[in-house]
Amino acid sequence: MLTRSLMSVSERPRVKSLIMDHRLSRPVVERFVAGNGLEDAVGAITKLNGSGIGGILDLLGEGVSDPKGASQAADEHLASIKRIEETGIDTTVTIKLTQLGLAFDKAGCIDYVRQLATEARSIGTHIEIDMEQSPFVGDTLEVYRALQADFEDIRLAVQAYLRRTPADLQTMAGLRPKIRLIKGAYSESPEVAVQKKGEIDAQFAWLTDWLLANGKDPAIGTHDGALIDHCIESAGRAGVGKEGFELQFLYGIRRDLQQRLADQGYRTRVYVPFGSAWYPYLMRRMAERPANLRFFLRALVGG
Amino acid sequence: MLTRSLMSVSERPRVKSLIMDHRLSRPVVERFVAGNGLEDAVGAITKLNGSGIGGILDLLGEGVSDPKGASQAADEHLASIKRIEETGIDTTVTIKLTQLGLAFDKAGCIDYVRQLATEARSIGTHIEIDMEQSPFVGDTLEVYRALQADFEDIRLAVQAYLRRTPADLQTMAGLRPKIRLIKGAYSESPEVAVQKKGEIDAQFAWLTDWLLANGKDPAIGTHDGALIDHCIESAGRAGVGKEGFELQFLYGIRRDLQQRLADQGYRTRVYVPFGSAWYPYLMRRMAERPANLRFFLRALVGG
Repeated sequence: MLTRSLMSVSERPRVKSLIMDHRLSRPVVERFVAGNGLEDAVGAITKLNGSGIGGILDLLGEGVSDPKGASQAADEHLASIKRIEETGIDTTVTIKLTQLGLAFDKAGCIDYVRQLATEARSIGTHIEIDMEQSPFVGDTLEVYRALQADFEDIRLAVQAYLRRTPADLQTMAGLRPKIRLIKGAYSESPEVAVQKKGEIDAQFAWLTDWLLANGKDPAIGTHDGALIDHCIESAGRAGVGKEGFELQFLYGIRRDLQQRLADQGYRTRVYVPFGSAWYPYLMRRMAERPANLRFFLRALVGG
Repeated sequence: MLTRSLMSVSERPRVKSLIMDHRLSRPVVERFVAGNGLEDAVGAITKLNGSGIGGILDLLGEGVSDPKGASQAADEHLASIKRIEETGIDTTVTIKLTQLGLAFDKAGCIDYVRQLATEARSIGTHIEIDMEQSPFVGDTLEVYRALQADFEDIRLAVQAYLRRTPADLQTMAGLRPKIRLIKGAYSESPEVAVQKKGEIDAQFAWLTDWLLANGKDPAIGTHDGALIDHCIESAGRAGVGKEGFELQFLYGIRRDLQQRLADQGYRTRVYVPFGSAWYPYLMRRMAERPANLRFFLRALVGG
């Protein structure tokens, strides 16, 4: 409920400009976003690497509407990969397919992803594909399937709150897909997505078990301690060691937890967003977790 | 919650004998169960047929624990099929695999189902397989898959409340399975089954759409008017006519609704249980619907 109502309010233009222009938004943005430029993100990841945590470099921005926008996004991703090679930081690169033209040119989008996956592999890392709103799920799966045979290293995000996710994964069971499991943070209808936290958590746990049994090197992307515990216990029951799965987090959220798990020898990566298009990303972070929203409101009203 | 707590109370031996022996239980039993003998069920189905409604003959009883019990149940089913032939009533025969030894002899269970499916087909009807508690789901699916190539007419019940159901169905998509979709009425844990009514309904609607697109002649087993409306509308959108799906109900529940839909030309069948082992069946009916429970309590306390 909180997700849906906050997300819907946040899409009003006046609310958006109020928040984007408010000088007090800055500290909140800085908590959850590495900065406007690639070098800000490189700096943040360098620091994480120093603590034994990998990065997932995320260029903010979604839904370009013309070939020029897609081409620009692809160029920015290529520049990121080049910079990763130069600096030697430990990070993957995550991409949103709508940023690469999925909505209007699927074949072109696949070509971009193939190019990025090739470049990433040449420097010893890999691409991750974010999952976006439900209307894009089918096409995103199609792009993943088109490339999976050539690029088994690509990791695909799937959302536990979607009712279709168990069936989607079962369809891919023969491929042993490499998946990032997240709860999902868009506003979706009850027919499309499970709505209550308890139900989403239970589905997340069920999918974790499925991925440990049927997937390849699953990544569990959550800050929910109970679900992380469930993953660790489930991996134990499935005979999967610490090297067989990854724990993923978001920049600025539960940094204590991130560090503790890294210190315990779990493979951890943090999703590090950078760029000026931080608004929708930030609103999803506010909507999905009351603690984030309180932090935001305290910053706004408390000065 | 009501389901789980009532189901757990109902399993206490003292509660069971109190209810089973109470003279005032009789009117409630008679409302939901056709009677103790096969002829009672034949009579009930004859009456339904007169109103344009088909039957689903259900011999009460579950979970036999030895080969003799399974053999007896198979014999009773064969006697039912013989009686259906003699009387010419319009009914299918539904079976529970644990009654045919699923728990201790899967191969023997498959043999029984094959025999029953053959006999049913020879008199122009078919077998339906009920779905039972979650520990039996995997084996039940296995039995169905073992027979589906030879007996495409067998209908399998699947439960919308189970988290695994979308994945199970997706696994069978290539078979175009013939399914009865029900909500599910056993007490299951949150990791195994969706718990809240709103979530179960949404999953039910999602699965209805899936079956209309991917299944063969789906049957929708619910008394929930909104979900029946959803099915009818979804069939319209999918270009599936009234002949392309079936609406199923339980004996004694929402008889007005059953008749109205039959009168409107929808294919309808009513699940007609008979036999002396009515206790667990009746407790599931009480737990799944407040109106049924109120009816029961009114009979008990009101005299």
